[in-house]
Amino acid sequence: MSSAVVLGLDVGGSSVKYRLASAAPSERIPEALAQGTVSTPKKDPVAGLAAIARDVTGSHRLTAVVVGIPGLVDEASGTVLRSANLPALDGLALGPALTAELEAPVAVINDGRAAAVAEARWGAGAGERDVFTLALGTGIAGSHIVDGRVVDGAHGIAGELGHVVVDPSGAVCACGQRGCLETVIGAPALRRAWNQAGGDGSPKDLLAAYEAGDVRAVRVVDRGAGALADAILTLLALVDPGVIVIGGGLASAPHRIVVRARALVDERATFHRVPPIVPATLGKWAGAVGAVAEARELAARVPVGISLN
Amino acid sequence: MSSAVVLGLDVGGSSVKYRLASAAPSERIPEALAQGTVSTPKKDPVAGLAAIARDVTGSHRLTAVVVGIPGLVDEASGTVLRSANLPALDGLALGPALTAELEAPVAVINDGRAAAVAEARWGAGAGERDVFTLALGTGIAGSHIVDGRVVDGAHGIAGELGHVVVDPSGAVCACGQRGCLETVIGAPALRRAWNQAGGDGSPKDLLAAYEAGDVRAVRVVDRGAGALADAILTLLALVDPGVIVIGGGLASAPHRIVVRARALVDERATFHRVPPIVPATLGKWAGAVGAVAEARELAARVPVGISLN
Repeated sequence: MSSAVVLGLDVGGSSVKYRLASAAPSERIPEALAQGTVSTPKKDPVAGLAAIARDVTGSHRLTAVVVGIPGLVDEASGTVLRSANLPALDGLALGPALTAELEAPVAVINDGRAAAVAEARWGAGAGERDVFTLALGTGIAGSHIVDGRVVDGAHGIAGELGHVVVDPSGAVCACGQRGCLETVIGAPALRRAWNQAGGDGSPKDLLAAYEAGDVRAVRVVDRGAGALADAILTLLALVDPGVIVIGGGLASAPHRIVVRARALVDERATFHRVPPIVPATLGKWAGAVGAVAEARELAARVPVGISLN
Repeated sequence: MSSAVVLGLDVGGSSVKYRLASAAPSERIPEALAQGTVSTPKKDPVAGLAAIARDVTGSHRLTAVVVGIPGLVDEASGTVLRSANLPALDGLALGPALTAELEAPVAVINDGRAAAVAEARWGAGAGERDVFTLALGTGIAGSHIVDGRVVDGAHGIAGELGHVVVDPSGAVCACGQRGCLETVIGAPALRRAWNQAGGDGSPKDLLAAYEAGDVRAVRVVDRGAGALADAILTLLALVDPGVIVIGGGLASAPHRIVVRARALVDERATFHRVPPIVPATLGKWAGAVGAVAEARELAARVPVGISLN
């Protein structure tokens, strides 16, 4: 008899990461029966993702699939509300469509949330019951995870550290507020600040120049790290997590902004209890791992033999 | 046979509020078998509070007591760590001492937390599973309550909205940070701002002058309400509660600051989901009601006939 498996798909703008694992629940990180990367199907995403799922599953028996999407998702209905990088998915009831194609339950979640759950359970947050994860990139995504579950508030939007105001007289944010953390330390904001200071290139070039001791780069990075530190102090006052895990493009490699921010948090904290502030450890597979973990829970919730049509 | 009862004591600087109720668990607000106010015993607080408990209990069988204290409490050991208004309690292992006196389990909690739980369950937060309560007074106390329980973070200090920075270049706070919400809208800060603007008297006089249309008072109240609105927007971004309940001395009576802050939150919100922002409804008995509710849970946890010595 073929073995029961679950599939996690982490759908990006250019590629899809997949991870196949046994459907059996486990406290440990779901071991990969298969893992890899394929091109994102752009034209007919439902047929394309279903074909990927069939290829990866092979002769195993697929009991649940979870698809991580970079964008706004209505988890209850499995609908992609808005995805900046994958306009073909906008408004699509992807969960029900794939469920019909694959004859297995398919749920859709936000990719950042999937990665956050994985980091909290098996990455840098492992062993701590109250974890806050932060992904620094173009935007800034935050997730509060307690006992392995996302605490997302009454309307599902808790954790938006990127839209905590750190500079009331600062730049106008895409969200409409003035001086959100994203307006200082989002990748486009860092690029702008770096270029205005006379530096060439992207935030990665900024960080390289910072490493080399370029005084303009030090000034830009320090301002960004200071803003991040202030937002983290607000987080400590309101949420008081047991560990803060920072990942995303800007945190990786020399992650100097994080190191500097951590020093500034220590320096500025008063009544706060400063928890460990650590880099994410699962890297680029975090989203697929989180999707697999959610797929195992989905498989456990759907009774054997239920009709999905 | 005498009936099993629980007692809640809400200990203030000058008086103790008590509420006696049946020990039987209930979803509804614990009905008072007896309720009242007596003077706070200053000299020998353990003997004094034990005498109050015995007087109030009469011929009933006391199965648990919870004492709400205005100050910092270590709930696990029942110790009062610091109480500004009741220095006789500082460092006292009040829970164990009263347990020995009364031969019933006695727990000690922060009074604001007791009131917050009661407001969330039976006051203005009733019916909403995700509640944030705020008490405006000399200090500003916040509590996040989900499913009737305080979510207090990894180190027990979550919910400190009073120490969210709203004005990075503002006044130095007692906590050591600059520009905390308390430095703008705590009662001493409001009094100072009012007096500096040429107004006479206390924050109550300020609010009366505001009602009368005094332009100086309007300016001071507007600044306070604006700071409160900014802190609430940060709360919505990070915690996303389903309702915000505001109580405390400054919120009662004409509660103009709250009304004005609510309007400013609506005006300034962008991506946020603004929940109802409503005044607390249980009034001065909230602390005693919350203590009774906690005492019922304590009674249910301690097996009948266990030795407490």
